[in-house]
Amino acid sequence: MEAAHIHLVRIGEFAWSRMEPHEGDWQWDWLDHAIALAAKHHMKVLLGTPSAAPPAWLTQKYPETLRVSNAGVRDEHGNRQQFSFISARYRALTHDLAERMAVRYGHNPNVVGWQIDNELAEPSFDPEAHKAFHAWLQHKYGTIENLNQKWWTSYWSQTYSDFGQIPVHDAEENPALLLNWKQFVTDTWVSYVRNQTTPIRQYALPSQFITTNTMGWFDGFDGYTLHQSLDLVGWDDYETDWTDNAARHDLARGYKNKNFWVTETDPGFVNWRPNNLAHDKGEVRALAWQAVGHGADAVEYWQWRAALNGQEQYHGVIAGADGNPAPIYAEIQTLGAEFEKAAPALQGTSPHAQVALLHDMPSRWAISFQKQVEDFNPVKALTAFYGPLRHRAGTVDVVSPRQNLASYKLIVAPGLNVLPQETAEHLLAWVRQGGHLLLGPRSGMKDAENALDPHLQPGPLAPFLGAHVSQFYGLVQPVALSLAQTQGKGTLWAETLEPTDPATQTEGTYGPSNGWLDGQPVAVSHQVGKGKITYLSTIPDAATLDAYITTQVRDAGALSPLADLPADIEACLRTGKDHTVLVLINHARTPVTFTLPQTTAGKDLLDPKQAASGQITLPGYGVRVLTLPNPA
Amino acid sequence: MEAAHIHLVRIGEFAWSRMEPHEGDWQWDWLDHAIALAAKHHMKVLLGTPSAAPPAWLTQKYPETLRVSNAGVRDEHGNRQQFSFISARYRALTHDLAERMAVRYGHNPNVVGWQIDNELAEPSFDPEAHKAFHAWLQHKYGTIENLNQKWWTSYWSQTYSDFGQIPVHDAEENPALLLNWKQFVTDTWVSYVRNQTTPIRQYALPSQFITTNTMGWFDGFDGYTLHQSLDLVGWDDYETDWTDNAARHDLARGYKNKNFWVTETDPGFVNWRPNNLAHDKGEVRALAWQAVGHGADAVEYWQWRAALNGQEQYHGVIAGADGNPAPIYAEIQTLGAEFEKAAPALQGTSPHAQVALLHDMPSRWAISFQKQVEDFNPVKALTAFYGPLRHRAGTVDVVSPRQNLASYKLIVAPGLNVLPQETAEHLLAWVRQGGHLLLGPRSGMKDAENALDPHLQPGPLAPFLGAHVSQFYGLVQPVALSLAQTQGKGTLWAETLEPTDPATQTEGTYGPSNGWLDGQPVAVSHQVGKGKITYLSTIPDAATLDAYITTQVRDAGALSPLADLPADIEACLRTGKDHTVLVLINHARTPVTFTLPQTTAGKDLLDPKQAASGQITLPGYGVRVLTLPNPA
Amino acid sequence: MEAAHIHLVRIGEFAWSRMEPHEGDWQWDWLDHAIALAAKHHMKVLLGTPSAAPPAWLTQKYPETLRVSNAGVRDEHGNRQQFSFISARYRALTHDLAERMAVRYGHNPNVVGWQIDNELAEPSFDPEAHKAFHAWLQHKYGTIENLNQKWWTSYWSQTYSDFGQIPVHDAEENPALLLNWKQFVTDTWVSYVRNQTTPIRQYALPSQFITTNTMGWFDGFDGYTLHQSLDLVGWDDYETDWTDNAARHDLARGYKNKNFWVTETDPGFVNWRPNNLAHDKGEVRALAWQAVGHGADAVEYWQWRAALNGQEQYHGVIAGADGNPAPIYAEIQTLGAEFEKAAPALQGTSPHAQVALLHDMPSRWAISFQKQVEDFNPVKALTAFYGPLRHRAGTVDVVSPRQNLASYKLIVAPGLNVLPQETAEHLLAWVRQGGHLLLGPRSGMKDAENALDPHLQPGPLAPFLGAHVSQFYGLVQPVALSLAQTQGKGTLWAETLEPTDPATQTEGTYGPSNGWLDGQPVAVSHQVGKGKITYLSTIPDAATLDAYITTQVRDAGALSPLADLPADIEACLRTGKDHTVLVLINHARTPVTFTLPQTTAGKDLLDPKQAASGQITLPGYGVRVLTLPNPA
Repeated sequence: MEAAHIHLVRIGEFAWSRMEPHEGDWQWDWLDHAIALAAKHHMKVLLGTPSAAPPAWLTQKYPETLRVSNAGVRDEHGNRQQFSFISARYRALTHDLAERMAVRYGHNPNVVGWQIDNELAEPSFDPEAHKAFHAWLQHKYGTIENLNQKWWTSYWSQTYSDFGQIPVHDAEENPALLLNWKQFVTDTWVSYVRNQTTPIRQYALPSQFITTNTMGWFDGFDGYTLHQSLDLVGWDDYETDWTDNAARHDLARGYKNKNFWVTETDPGFVNWRPNNLAHDKGEVRALAWQAVGHGADAVEYWQWRAALNGQEQYHGVIAGADGNPAPIYAEIQTLGAEFEKAAPALQGTSPHAQVALLHDMPSRWAISFQKQVEDFNPVKALTAFYGPLRHRAGTVDVVSPRQNLASYKLIVAPGLNVLPQETAEHLLAWVRQGGHLLLGPRSGMKDAENALDPHLQPGPLAPFLGAHVSQFYGLVQPVALSLAQTQGKGTLWAETLEPTDPATQTEGTYGPSNGWLDGQPVAVSHQVGKGKITYLSTIPDAATLDAYITTQVRDAGALSPLADLPADIEACLRTGKDHTVLVLINHARTPVTFTLPQTTAGKDLLDPKQAASGQITLPGYGVRVLTLPNPA
Repeated sequence: MEAAHIHLVRIGEFAWSRMEPHEGDWQWDWLDHAIALAAKHHMKVLLGTPSAAPPAWLTQKYPETLRVSNAGVRDEHGNRQQFSFISARYRALTHDLAERMAVRYGHNPNVVGWQIDNELAEPSFDPEAHKAFHAWLQHKYGTIENLNQKWWTSYWSQTYSDFGQIPVHDAEENPALLLNWKQFVTDTWVSYVRNQTTPIRQYALPSQFITTNTMGWFDGFDGYTLHQSLDLVGWDDYETDWTDNAARHDLARGYKNKNFWVTETDPGFVNWRPNNLAHDKGEVRALAWQAVGHGADAVEYWQWRAALNGQEQYHGVIAGADGNPAPIYAEIQTLGAEFEKAAPALQGTSPHAQVALLHDMPSRWAISFQKQVEDFNPVKALTAFYGPLRHRAGTVDVVSPRQNLASYKLIVAPGLNVLPQETAEHLLAWVRQGGHLLLGPRSGMKDAENALDPHLQPGPLAPFLGAHVSQFYGLVQPVALSLAQTQGKGTLWAETLEPTDPATQTEGTYGPSNGWLDGQPVAVSHQVGKGKITYLSTIPDAATLDAYITTQVRDAGALSPLADLPADIEACLRTGKDHTVLVLINHARTPVTFTLPQTTAGKDLLDPKQAASGQITLPGYGVRVLTLPNPA
Repeated sequence: MEAAHIHLVRIGEFAWSRMEPHEGDWQWDWLDHAIALAAKHHMKVLLGTPSAAPPAWLTQKYPETLRVSNAGVRDEHGNRQQFSFISARYRALTHDLAERMAVRYGHNPNVVGWQIDNELAEPSFDPEAHKAFHAWLQHKYGTIENLNQKWWTSYWSQTYSDFGQIPVHDAEENPALLLNWKQFVTDTWVSYVRNQTTPIRQYALPSQFITTNTMGWFDGFDGYTLHQSLDLVGWDDYETDWTDNAARHDLARGYKNKNFWVTETDPGFVNWRPNNLAHDKGEVRALAWQAVGHGADAVEYWQWRAALNGQEQYHGVIAGADGNPAPIYAEIQTLGAEFEKAAPALQGTSPHAQVALLHDMPSRWAISFQKQVEDFNPVKALTAFYGPLRHRAGTVDVVSPRQNLASYKLIVAPGLNVLPQETAEHLLAWVRQGGHLLLGPRSGMKDAENALDPHLQPGPLAPFLGAHVSQFYGLVQPVALSLAQTQGKGTLWAETLEPTDPATQTEGTYGPSNGWLDGQPVAVSHQVGKGKITYLSTIPDAATLDAYITTQVRDAGALSPLADLPADIEACLRTGKDHTVLVLINHARTPVTFTLPQTTAGKDLLDPKQAASGQITLPGYGVRVLTLPNPA
């Protein structure tokens, strides 16, 4: 590890049975030793609480700590995450565990931070969860009559006379119930995490940060709410498509609007997919630099070496079963040396964006509950817009619609399905100051209770758009359209837009299809104060969407100087007080040549002898890291 | 609604929690008001009993009323149809409810009829169902020895010594058990419905009819049995293929051999399919006229306006979430005006057929239990024959083999798999009088107990056919054949036919395939009295089947004067005492031109200025409604 | 039957409810009568114990005898195999049953043997199984600490403090647990069978053999262990691909290295597949001769005539529902006559092989638990190698790596994933004496506990191979390679091989793909004593694998004189003391002409007038049976 320039190890996260082999029999010597050994070899420690894997004796003695599935089946020992996230008993046990760890390691200078649990995921539907959900609803709605009204329960005779009658399920229920369940699950995970952060904050050095490792687009809870309780965003990066991966990094950065850590990524391949294919030679290094380019300040590989038995035997490793370097070792060693070289220049830098993509969990949930066409995936809708936005505008922030928006020139909201009045007002205030807001299809359909907004889409923004959606159409076959000087197709969804104000502008036209859409506008826009709102009623094919986004970005004055780089070349900018670092990555298997604009010419950080301006050729999976003066 | 020429509303069918918000707390004012309001705007009311959606308090207090799935899981509140169809408690509660409704509305002149429950569907496998099934079997078979013998239970050591030992499942059991279960389920739904019709008939005006809304080809029970308890057939039409839809209308008409109602159809699209695509502009109107052409005397749209929350938010509507007309409103308004115009001419008319397609639930069930090739779908086998029959013979009746057949010249029975002696005799009596009976593959294999008939196929008819099936062959790859001057393919199924009488005629020949079929006849026929029986041993490809059916129709003297219209044009005839109404529909998106034969020239009902004879061009989804003199 | 030259019937195997209709009410008259009737018509009887189908009264009275699924659901009466293989009560009842049958029929001269149960298959997860598995583990490992160490349970905090904590499941658990479960299941089936063989051996004539009918590649237990308790291998042959069928016959022969019986095969088609297609005319006869060619001494058809009701109504039959010959009867009658004619020459002959294919259940299980790429099927990997080996070397033995290997020149082990030290030594001893061992990909990865071997692949053989696998790569897209003078593809899996000895030879080269494999050797080999070990790191496409296997077979001196016959012609040799029988089969639908080498010219057994040397034309599905002198 030391020879590979590794300066950080994460330990402890599944080690409860080693820490406490029998109830009350605490064993810390091995962990003391491991931390000391890491220190000796110049590695800092990220210390995980092992609550994701309770020991066999624990769940045997306290079976109420085991989670229950939506189908009512109690989980068993043998894998991970078998605990109930709401069990009072489990919370008492994990509070005690976290406190003991904090007391012992909270002042260890080699421990830089804490990871709570591991990949929080599955809620429990046990009796405690039933009671808690009902109590949570009662607290939120006050009276059952109020809930009945907000949920429109007279439909299908769902009306409740008692909170205890409300079903506890995560699918095939009233849309209002489903949305509330997700919010309850979020709140329960927040209190689950706080149950551990509280004793750690009490006993640990303030310099030790607290994080947890989340999972990209995972939609089991609202990450914006959860990360409020934590100091640092960590995420586990097992994505293989580079554009989607870029979006996930920006998602991670957006939770707290600051740099983040990649808490896990694979050294080549994983073992839990149906097909576990390896990254090409060089691709692992390229992806690590991509992480850094998007704001990662650490990249951790899972796993160093396989346990000789257990469910992850086939997972990629840096050291083989024999303990010797696996083929990937050399690539990671090179990367380690590069990180050491670049670290001083990267210090204090981070990406800064002029454009944002809105990511809203209630909207994603609402669409996923009721997709209407089976291929409509709200994440794919987001990444369809992300790709051209990233290409043409450079750095993109992926953020919640409820955060401070002042720094953006253009905000794109594909599928902002749930749009409560206060969110609409927050967006409007920003538009009035000059912001350009581009809404995608399915936006503004629902209120905070997942009820249809009687204003019609885009709901509270309809009066400001000077138009509303008169009808939506789910699509399997794409429909012809012309938009942004391009003859293309609308996919998955299309809507007819009905202007209500003569000042409303229309853009593009649908070609002949089902009769309803023929000749209708594809988008409409309307001035609001110093800014404007645009509504795009479909997801255009990639080429058309790129053309359209390019016009939107240019119109908003947010075009990047690197907007014309070839499609396989990614350019990442991290800016600090005095300088900017530019990471250039060739994500293709084969070499690509391009010309760097004069404004982004710099100095090569990894190999100062290389030219860092003008025409550049990057080999397959090649990376260049330049320092530039900050833009004027 | 009034402006759209709507004259009928259906209400009440899921409103139990509004009628009885707490046990014994009956609330009728809102319903009184709704019926009065409908009357004020010239709309009659079809009143639904809300038994498909019991309130939360009810199932909470009486959990034994909740249905149990085949896998043994009790349903929960939150959706619909969560009740057990056999629960004595539930029957007492729904009897009381129906009686209260009948007492209150049974003399309301604005209530034209009653709908019992909604889309009867899922049986229950609860303890009461177990007991009832065993008692039903005991009543049917008398002794367990008799059942053992009829079911051949010595096979796989299934022999029972007690009725209570018999499994209660709807799949993966002895074929005799499976067939009996379906018949038990049918009888149980009949008594479930009668439990409500009895008090309604006691208190309601005789002029108020009773119906329920059934679901096309749904095979959960035997509709022929069920509809004996009801006055009018209502069905929910969510089909999108126009030929299949035509067959479903004829199925509905055939249950009672009289005109029917479309109790539900969508105004554009639904929300419960994986992909919910919209009808083209104009198609909703065309399909409504198709319903009328096949004998519908009412067409009801689900839904007028969406509840702002609840599982059907995305279902198509006539009025939007804002209460204003949705784009489809104008099309339905046009249709309403046309119905008003055509109503006097349609009054007293109905379709009359010379040919029938036999539809037999025991046969469909038996094939579905044991498909032998996975793509063999007994409904698709029926509709494969229906298409050319409808095209060449005009009106087709889809009827049970047990009804009066005297009016038919040709009867087609594709897949009459279960053929008890008495049904065979009923068919034979009709054949002897001159009828032409065409049996399709898989016919006459089983007796009433779903046991193999030792006569070999077609069972009791084999001696009269002068041939039997020596072996069947399930097919995945089609086999070559020549039939009716056509070189085609046999699909899914083929049988070798062995003539047993020199007078037996053979038709067509199989080409080379698996050796067994090579050179064998495709069909055989035999004179019986004044008529004849033909057995066709495969399902020919569409073109060959059309050629063959055309010869059969011609041979039976049942060719329609409109047999040569283009494939996309449907012609529907409704005949009354003095005149005939001809509905012509273009089911294509684009215009079609054709020539109307002299014998069907008439007068245009909707636009008297239009020519109604000779060459006619119908635009895409165009409809013409003509009145003609009755044929001589 | 007699007219069809049938000399053997199997009866009794599902007849418990006929033998004991009520508890203790034993009825043997019907069975006495059936056996006597068989004798009268010159048919011997294979008598089955009916334990696969307990009567309804039994499981009703003793519900603990019903099996419980992995999901915890108790099975019910109504089908077969609903018993728990470990229930003490069920064992007492079946012991008593077997004893009664043995007392009654153990001295009946017309009973030639016994079949225990039927198609042993599904384990039970009932409370008795839980206890037994825990006790079995305790017996094997002694202490829980020992188990924890061997299973590496510190991974994911799985560590147990008590044997009773160990999960009882057959999927999604620690790989060591999964492998132990399969071994426990094997031992439990062994004791289940012994529970019946013990009383039968006590009371029956020694001349009566004991068998059971197993199912080809079925992987529910280890057949090598099971067959040690039995006298004769019987298997149920429902395979349709002739090469795979050949391998299955050799698998059956390999369990005890002697001739076997086909206890069931279908007369045309079955009823339990999604698509049940018929064999072509002539194919049933060809497949029966194939069975004989591979060492079958009996071929039994299931079923003679269908029960008129029950789950197998649609299964192929020899006599129809009417009791008369079905079309297939004539073909089977011909075959019966041929068998009668050939029997004297076949007497005392059996296939003898110079090459073996290793088939190892622990390896198959280990790969199936962790496929890494979803299309990697360890049986398909075996049959990929079997095809060319059979074609080029003639007779192939499919055997366990733990048997006596002395007679082989070449052994091929595709996917010997689990390779304990003692198996490695057994193979090495044979190699040192001159054997050629060809290992396929994924070999030698795991030890007996399913743990990774820290020697890296091929584990204990790595030092002798002079190379090890440095990294594996699961593949979805094939990779280019050149091998054995052929430009081809590697499929599903590829590994980089790192020579550790200068004497190691490399063969073939990977083309450009993921960077890691580019230019690496496809295979390596190394001399060991008088023999050599070769490791092939991928599964080449069929043509390349054939070329490669041909060089391996030639190199080992094991090329068959019939190695150049056309691909559709199978040649089977059975050798006796004085002569050899050669069965030639055309598995194609159309005629094939070929030249028989001089060394295999002989005399036609079925039709002595036919030429039996030189150029021969076999019609589609044609068969020739020759007698030859034994090779010198």
